Amino acid sequence: MSEGVAFVDGHYVGRDEAKISVFDLGFSRSDVAYDVVSTWKGLFFRLDDHVERFLASAAGVRIRCPYGAAEIGQILAECTFRAGLQDAYVEVLVTRGQFQPPGSRDLRHTTPNFIAYAVPYVWILPPELHASGAHVWIAPTPRIPDAAVDARYKNFHWGDLTRAQLQALDAGADVAVLSSLSGHLSEGPGFNVFFVKDRTIYTPGTNVLRGITRRTVFELAAEVGVEVEAGDYEPDRLREADEAFMSSTAGGIMPITQVDGRSLGDGKPGALSWRLRELYWAKREAGWHGARITDLLASRRTA
Amino acid sequence: MSEGVAFVDGHYVGRDEAKISVFDLGFSRSDVAYDVVSTWKGLFFRLDDHVERFLASAAGVRIRCPYGAAEIGQILAECTFRAGLQDAYVEVLVTRGQFQPPGSRDLRHTTPNFIAYAVPYVWILPPELHASGAHVWIAPTPRIPDAAVDARYKNFHWGDLTRAQLQALDAGADVAVLSSLSGHLSEGPGFNVFFVKDRTIYTPGTNVLRGITRRTVFELAAEVGVEVEAGDYEPDRLREADEAFMSSTAGGIMPITQVDGRSLGDGKPGALSWRLRELYWAKREAGWHGARITDLLASRRTA
Repeated sequence: MSEGVAFVDGHYVGRDEAKISVFDLGFSRSDVAYDVVSTWKGLFFRLDDHVERFLASAAGVRIRCPYGAAEIGQILAECTFRAGLQDAYVEVLVTRGQFQPPGSRDLRHTTPNFIAYAVPYVWILPPELHASGAHVWIAPTPRIPDAAVDARYKNFHWGDLTRAQLQALDAGADVAVLSSLSGHLSEGPGFNVFFVKDRTIYTPGTNVLRGITRRTVFELAAEVGVEVEAGDYEPDRLREADEAFMSSTAGGIMPITQVDGRSLGDGKPGALSWRLRELYWAKREAGWHGARITDLLASRRTA
Repeated sequence: MSEGVAFVDGHYVGRDEAKISVFDLGFSRSDVAYDVVSTWKGLFFRLDDHVERFLASAAGVRIRCPYGAAEIGQILAECTFRAGLQDAYVEVLVTRGQFQPPGSRDLRHTTPNFIAYAVPYVWILPPELHASGAHVWIAPTPRIPDAAVDARYKNFHWGDLTRAQLQALDAGADVAVLSSLSGHLSEGPGFNVFFVKDRTIYTPGTNVLRGITRRTVFELAAEVGVEVEAGDYEPDRLREADEAFMSSTAGGIMPITQVDGRSLGDGKPGALSWRLRELYWAKREAGWHGARITDLLASRRTA
């Protein structure tokens, strides 16, 4: 099985060579912007949207990315192609780099470090568990507020998410959902959360990543004629929902069937959740928002 | 000049070989605990206190450290000795490691990754600037609250600190000081802050790292017969102080002479700040809380 290919220091290398200095501020201060896009059956999904958000994240934390959007798309395609992957989890990141000279503390004089890689597709909830659905735990740890570290700029400040995820695992659940400091539903580790009540879909509107799969849910819901509302919701709204699901590049749309140890509805994936999940994959496979890996390579090679 | 020596995967290597996989959760989720201790003229300062705090930080974020306190002290001494350094910045860290197998998302089944290194001593404020003092900027970005990521467990979630530091540099200042979400003074990037008013020293008591140099300031203040109070203080208390200083393993006690572009007192380092700074270095050089690098090596070699 392919393990993956990375792009590091301007070269394509094997997964095991994808390393970063411990002196890189991307590690020692988590000073890094990133994004993840996926391919499925040889097609990238919403590549341009992911690259656009990546560049916005880097700009948001004031890291200069050494490559433009078109080059980044080609590098990601090249990683995926060289890894021999059809279904891939493809990450791009840029760190602030190292202080120059060593011992300096001036953040303005660093050389950003750009890395990308493609590895086999990753699922937050393995597909064989979709029919039973995820058990989520509304964890006591609050999400880092945007005023301190803005969740809109995709970043590795996962301390709160990890702490919450360990609390969820302790409780026997699969994944955590966090609340904001103001006590409203926020997001989980790597996914946005949605719940359905009386045929309307609700999702937290603040203190969350503006997920691209989340945006996709809005589009799919419009297609099936269901309204989506983004706002501030108490955790009880999720506990008392008719059905619920999570969205992520790492798994698409995945049903939630239990919250805090209690079943939603009849304990099976909700009909609307399942319909959106099926539609997501059917439309992806049909090329919706798609870009073929090999076409991106061709554009590079003729450029 | 020596560039440093690191301990990685159980081996002593050069600084340039101190790397971590981009798949290590220590990078990809900033899931890591760390500490920094210094040596000066061949003496570690408060090594046991730093190692104790390091182990408490790892336990606090539920990462199992593969070494105990005595072994860690010896590894740090060995790094410093091999680097040929008398004045060193010595870091120890442990990450959660990588998911096993790749693609899994279970935080409970990882192998922690322990790294240590010694590099030349680092100053937050270069010593040649101590006589003029630092210009600090009370930045608009708030510190991450402890409820989300507990600042008592020394961690790399520096997004707020970096954002604030860039705001300070934009303003022409040297370093940032952040406030908590409740609007009280907190800390800066890598240091605790103190101010003096009417011969009493004040320092923020919440949403701060329990700095070991901070603790040292309490001890030195007691020695010179000055009271230190830790509590919640409005930023104006710092702006209107008689004098101020910062404390850090990276530089000891360093005077602050300007806040938000305005001088404190006569714009020179305060008499009490300077006295504590001098006392700090004099007592360190005399062996206070000290452990000689070579003695730690000897204990290892006879063990």
